[in-house]
Amino acid sequence: MKIISGGVCAPKGFRANGIHCGIRRNKSKRDLSLIVSEAPCAGAAVYTRNKVKGAPLLVTRKHLEDGRAQAVIVNSGNANTCNADGVEVAEKIASFAGRALGLAPNDVLVASTGVIGQRLDPAPIEQGLPSLVAGLGADEEASVRAAEGIMTTDTVRKEAAVEFTAGGRTCRMGAIGKGSGMIHPDLATMLVFITTDCAISPAMLQKALSHDVQKTFNMTSVDGDTSTNDNVVLLANGLAGNPEITAEGEDFTAFMQALNTITVSICRKIAGDGEGATKMLECRVSHAKTERDARICAKSVITSSLVKTAMFGSDANWGRVLCAIGYSGADVDVNKVELSFRSKAGEVLVCRDGAGVDFSEETAKKVLLEKEIDILIDLHDGEAGATAWGCDLTYDYVKINGDYRT
Amino acid sequence: MKIISGGVCAPKGFRANGIHCGIRRNKSKRDLSLIVSEAPCAGAAVYTRNKVKGAPLLVTRKHLEDGRAQAVIVNSGNANTCNADGVEVAEKIASFAGRALGLAPNDVLVASTGVIGQRLDPAPIEQGLPSLVAGLGADEEASVRAAEGIMTTDTVRKEAAVEFTAGGRTCRMGAIGKGSGMIHPDLATMLVFITTDCAISPAMLQKALSHDVQKTFNMTSVDGDTSTNDNVVLLANGLAGNPEITAEGEDFTAFMQALNTITVSICRKIAGDGEGATKMLECRVSHAKTERDARICAKSVITSSLVKTAMFGSDANWGRVLCAIGYSGADVDVNKVELSFRSKAGEVLVCRDGAGVDFSEETAKKVLLEKEIDILIDLHDGEAGATAWGCDLTYDYVKINGDYRT
Repeated sequence: MKIISGGVCAPKGFRANGIHCGIRRNKSKRDLSLIVSEAPCAGAAVYTRNKVKGAPLLVTRKHLEDGRAQAVIVNSGNANTCNADGVEVAEKIASFAGRALGLAPNDVLVASTGVIGQRLDPAPIEQGLPSLVAGLGADEEASVRAAEGIMTTDTVRKEAAVEFTAGGRTCRMGAIGKGSGMIHPDLATMLVFITTDCAISPAMLQKALSHDVQKTFNMTSVDGDTSTNDNVVLLANGLAGNPEITAEGEDFTAFMQALNTITVSICRKIAGDGEGATKMLECRVSHAKTERDARICAKSVITSSLVKTAMFGSDANWGRVLCAIGYSGADVDVNKVELSFRSKAGEVLVCRDGAGVDFSEETAKKVLLEKEIDILIDLHDGEAGATAWGCDLTYDYVKINGDYRT
Repeated sequence: MKIISGGVCAPKGFRANGIHCGIRRNKSKRDLSLIVSEAPCAGAAVYTRNKVKGAPLLVTRKHLEDGRAQAVIVNSGNANTCNADGVEVAEKIASFAGRALGLAPNDVLVASTGVIGQRLDPAPIEQGLPSLVAGLGADEEASVRAAEGIMTTDTVRKEAAVEFTAGGRTCRMGAIGKGSGMIHPDLATMLVFITTDCAISPAMLQKALSHDVQKTFNMTSVDGDTSTNDNVVLLANGLAGNPEITAEGEDFTAFMQALNTITVSICRKIAGDGEGATKMLECRVSHAKTERDARICAKSVITSSLVKTAMFGSDANWGRVLCAIGYSGADVDVNKVELSFRSKAGEVLVCRDGAGVDFSEETAKKVLLEKEIDILIDLHDGEAGATAWGCDLTYDYVKINGDYRT
């Protein structure tokens, strides 16, 4: 497997574009994106578990009932959630896109991100579609435009792509994603769209995605708030020409590895671009009793406001990490916990057997001043492990969210 | 029942004091407090459910096994948690205090608050005890000194006192508390000490306290972090002369009402003095299916970082409240939710039947610019209700916690 460029346009037969159609006031900001495959795709998706679900998710779920789709249309600037006619509007958008692309509305998936609780006017989308379709491209720049069209408070684009082999054929997989605030996914995260030309059945595609998100998007948190519009979509058009993957085996394993490389890459980008973040935190828990305990523990640490602010201040206040392990609900023996901080500037052990050890504050400061920090927790209590991704809590998070609507 | 002054010294037979003994470097800051009853007390306590428990809690729990106690000694500046000899040190402190007061060490309860993971040197406490005991007083100022001695990042003292009648006798109850950060209690909150001269059996005292904290301290959150040292202690010395309360009935009800008035008052003070807070948030959920659903829902809203930052910005971004209800895990029908914001400047309805309604942004701004905000949620789905208390999330929370240790 190798890392390549090209985002969602890396796999064969996928085109993309992103334009400004007028949902956002700022004309320099793209607000409408489209991803289309030239051949019908197996489709899989996971959705937020928030009981308040964005209307587009309900429509996408309905359109994916047959396990097939061929295009995704996404707007930013308005979440089309908690309003009276959301589903109707989302269906309209799918119809407009289907008409412009010559596809059945049922083969178009819909997603929206932005403010909750305001009516989404579909008119700018209908009017923008001709130029959105006319500008579709299959190159790296086309994927970039699509990635830009789904950004809200994101400060950097999130893209990833890999090449792998299945059934003796070269396959590719690519993704674009967005997410910066309201990030604490439960079964999925804020919008991520993954494309592949690998041939794989809808059932195996959903199996791969559902399994992967437990270890990736569900282990990522910016602010503890699970969005209403979380949605990860994976489309496979089979144009790589490999024998369709219909069961577990070598090819499915290769597919899962490619998928995990893509999703971990997007998770790290989402965490590192958390609203106001200056640092990406990766918490690795090892030697837990069960994988569930490891996950609960890792996620509790990267979610703690006090751990996050300490990391912002480059302060090795490790008692807060122990505290977050203690209240996590994981089955851990707190008297066995070993804890280190690590970054490219070095590593410092701060706690062993649940109690503090002498360490150099100067070294700790140097380690924590870096932009990517590993929080390494060894529970000395079993064989399971897990990793979670998060970011620091900063003045800018408060600033960005103190007056988001205006 | 009437509100009175005097804090923990309001009930008969209780004396208190607080001094600077040298645990903190800042000599103008008291760091050691003592509360003593002239008669033996029935004692009850609730403790953090964090698996990492402060050493003083283990000692207090042991000393309360017989349901009796007569004094509490508390230091700030060091939590005596996650170190090698914490329990030994906490036992020493109880012994020093017992010797100075002529009490068995077993009748002295111990509590600590401050940084986690550093050894607590008991020497300054031993050396400070003679002057701490010499300065004990039974007046309002004595309670003030004790309240000051337990403050950490608190900006205001937390005290409360009431007078009520049980068995035809006038009884009093008073409390001091501290808590500003790492506040998301699970069974208890950061240190609160409640005194009463009402005669009540240890079993009924524990019953009253355990029941009350579910509706009060467990419904308060500043930052979602459950402290390792949460502890509420309630001492009853019986000097009011009422017939001892040994079962449910009119007197127990009066006692519960007095206790709830005290605890709600302390909760509101802790929430309003949350680290960096500019606003106190009270979330009242009504017409829920069950009280559990109401509590989960109310606590989810006041815990949401996005709701908290919106309140800091006086921004009526009500979609975030709906979002927090949706991911709370409570059994709610999101299509029935009605939501208003209220303060002394007025009230504004922002959502009905789960969808936005037209409202004046100007009025909403005026309502949300106040210092105390009510978030009123009507679930239209049953008869149960609950209230939770929290605060906004501000630049100063980040500042205070970015470098707490130095």
